[in-house]
Amino acid sequence: MRLAEKDILDIESLSVERIKNILDTAEGLKEISTRPIKKVPTLRGKTIIHFFYEPSTRTRTSFEIAAKRLSADTVSISASTSSIAKGETLVDTAKNLEAMNPDAIVIRHRAAGAPHMLARLVRASVINAGDGMHAHPSQALLDMMTVREKKGRLAGLKIAIIGDITHSRVARSNIVGFVKMGAEVILAGPPTMIPMGVETLGARVGYHVQEAIKDADVIMVLRIQKERQQALVFPSEREYAQCYGLTEEKLAGVKEDVLIMHPGPINRGVEIAPEVAEGPYSVILEQVTNGVAIRMALFYLLLGGAR
Amino acid sequence: MRLAEKDILDIESLSVERIKNILDTAEGLKEISTRPIKKVPTLRGKTIIHFFYEPSTRTRTSFEIAAKRLSADTVSISASTSSIAKGETLVDTAKNLEAMNPDAIVIRHRAAGAPHMLARLVRASVINAGDGMHAHPSQALLDMMTVREKKGRLAGLKIAIIGDITHSRVARSNIVGFVKMGAEVILAGPPTMIPMGVETLGARVGYHVQEAIKDADVIMVLRIQKERQQALVFPSEREYAQCYGLTEEKLAGVKEDVLIMHPGPINRGVEIAPEVAEGPYSVILEQVTNGVAIRMALFYLLLGGAR
Amino acid sequence: MRLAEKDILDIESLSVERIKNILDTAEGLKEISTRPIKKVPTLRGKTIIHFFYEPSTRTRTSFEIAAKRLSADTVSISASTSSIAKGETLVDTAKNLEAMNPDAIVIRHRAAGAPHMLARLVRASVINAGDGMHAHPSQALLDMMTVREKKGRLAGLKIAIIGDITHSRVARSNIVGFVKMGAEVILAGPPTMIPMGVETLGARVGYHVQEAIKDADVIMVLRIQKERQQALVFPSEREYAQCYGLTEEKLAGVKEDVLIMHPGPINRGVEIAPEVAEGPYSVILEQVTNGVAIRMALFYLLLGGAR
Repeated sequence: MRLAEKDILDIESLSVERIKNILDTAEGLKEISTRPIKKVPTLRGKTIIHFFYEPSTRTRTSFEIAAKRLSADTVSISASTSSIAKGETLVDTAKNLEAMNPDAIVIRHRAAGAPHMLARLVRASVINAGDGMHAHPSQALLDMMTVREKKGRLAGLKIAIIGDITHSRVARSNIVGFVKMGAEVILAGPPTMIPMGVETLGARVGYHVQEAIKDADVIMVLRIQKERQQALVFPSEREYAQCYGLTEEKLAGVKEDVLIMHPGPINRGVEIAPEVAEGPYSVILEQVTNGVAIRMALFYLLLGGAR
Repeated sequence: MRLAEKDILDIESLSVERIKNILDTAEGLKEISTRPIKKVPTLRGKTIIHFFYEPSTRTRTSFEIAAKRLSADTVSISASTSSIAKGETLVDTAKNLEAMNPDAIVIRHRAAGAPHMLARLVRASVINAGDGMHAHPSQALLDMMTVREKKGRLAGLKIAIIGDITHSRVARSNIVGFVKMGAEVILAGPPTMIPMGVETLGARVGYHVQEAIKDADVIMVLRIQKERQQALVFPSEREYAQCYGLTEEKLAGVKEDVLIMHPGPINRGVEIAPEVAEGPYSVILEQVTNGVAIRMALFYLLLGGAR
Repeated sequence: MRLAEKDILDIESLSVERIKNILDTAEGLKEISTRPIKKVPTLRGKTIIHFFYEPSTRTRTSFEIAAKRLSADTVSISASTSSIAKGETLVDTAKNLEAMNPDAIVIRHRAAGAPHMLARLVRASVINAGDGMHAHPSQALLDMMTVREKKGRLAGLKIAIIGDITHSRVARSNIVGFVKMGAEVILAGPPTMIPMGVETLGARVGYHVQEAIKDADVIMVLRIQKERQQALVFPSEREYAQCYGLTEEKLAGVKEDVLIMHPGPINRGVEIAPEVAEGPYSVILEQVTNGVAIRMALFYLLLGGAR
């Protein structure tokens, strides 16, 4: 069954039913990546363009591997080697790519809303692979898949998200997603990193980390994104690590079956201690594995079968 | 039927019959890109290397998509990540690539004549994807395809080319191509941008834009290539736009069925007004679509079937 | 038959039997690259990641072409466009890549030992495509293949390696490989470029080039790697060329059937004169052709068939 939606731009525009549908599909496709021949012919003859205006290893690689395991053809464009250097507008670039008849365009862009603009301009399916501080829907979907796989459900769980909420598109998409699926979301971090009015998304704000994680079923630690911060919003990495970094010490007293997640890449010893990242609660690498499955599901649902 | 030519280096070396043959082939292959499964097995097991010494989005993407829709394997090399940084000569790079048995090498290079040198050195087919200010044959072929598709013929048409003729490999290849196919070509632009002796290519020079476009069947607007100009050859972009930029105002009185073309990427509001680029006469995006078809035709004719 | 080894990290860890096995396999696969359809389905559905922390044209292209001729899916990551820029450790990058279920990771890294560390961390096969000044096993294997092809054997041959031994991973891997296969290796170069204790690898040091090459069956000229030298270890390129550069003059009196090799890219007129690089003794381009065959053999033996 093909998605009614043409694009995957944010979690807001996906219904509860649709999210379940995507997670179910990803669970079914996950097994392909463990076969000796990790490939099905489903999307043979489809053209997928990966257009990354910001550097990325894991996300681009994950999308590319997902596309290839479904037998799609991929073309990869990075901003540094493209005619964006020649001053072309995103609108013109979009229309030009469209004219080559791609089936999907995966885009990462520093400007919030860029994928939405692209989606309105082209017939191809657009997948937002991260836009500014706005959204990163495939990340939220793989996070929900990982939690559902481990806990059997999303509704009623308590999800603590720790760190720089303000600058994190991962946080925003996850808050919306988990709230939509019936989970309770509590945020903790330096006051300068909690955006005003974030409660309107349905999350609760609790500034103390230990308070926030005490009864949590899931602790999601965010990356300190040095490259995205205009001004320093905390005194030093060391102080951040002391107050907000997830250490074994802070984990004393958390639930026995808590899940610890991180979208990566990790700043070891800053927002998360190495022994926690690699500890028994961590499902960080399962997140990466599920990332390929979620992206396969998105391609499959957007491009596969008859609409 | 395979081409007698080993390479596609410029329009000069293609006969009228050969150009017709390429356009006919491209028209036949164009339909593949509109199928649900946009792929034919024709060039399975062929290796095509895309070697771009200058950054490019649209041309490289167009060639890559064309190759993949014919099932060829592609490897992409850009100057910034290659051993050219280590000071290797083009001759040595060419011989090394050749030793890996590619079937075709697509090359873009800032030095005029680089593809010709490459072609003499290797057994593989070489396609010039733009060399310095010299030639861009696949662009001229897709332009001719677009005009023929819309007008049913090339002979007897009047083609106006507006802008920086001196620095444009697109202009040069198009002048030679359209003149060869029996069209009349008239050039307009700042005197500093019209090379001396360009009449020897068979084009007529008319410095006033409105004079040049009055009876034109096709108006081809060239990009102001800021990155290629050593010194400023006109006072400012604003003055250029006023005198030579194609605006709706200047279009008053042109033929009702005129075609407006641009090789892209567009400098909006400089050489072409946005409302003209997106207006009813514009076939700019059809050019891009035909670009994939022309490149499929070149690969097919050079590599397909028995020679 | 599949290799017992999971990885190819250096020549030291390969037995004589294994090296013969790899060379035999490469000889058998070499013919595929001369077919009209240069492709076999052997590794269909396998995922190979090419992870190049240092720029490279020939080695990356060679590995990519080898993978595609065996029908594997490839994803290419270069340091400049990856999250290494975000400060991720190699360990975390490795674990993340692993979580996407690749079958092999080909890595080039400026730090000696990086591929070994990677290999311990991941289930995927790791192939060292060059690590710092340490090893470049696929280069040594293709060099041995080229010599064996031309001479019918390796044992008993005299191999002269000329140039900057200290900074060359190619030299190190070749010394170990040729000595292991029963050849005699003699080194020549500026005293500052011959590492102390290199005799422990089984090579003999003879500082004078003409002395070293006099009875040689093979003369392997190393690249002066300007980019790898911290301080200038010889006065000037011109003086290097005079004393150590392989010129026709120096070749007077060498064996009639000597082979001249170079790993590329060549500094023409520095370590080798152009007329020697292109002369009758040179097998430099055969080395490149055999490079594709060796890499096909490595992929085939590591990933093909049942272990």
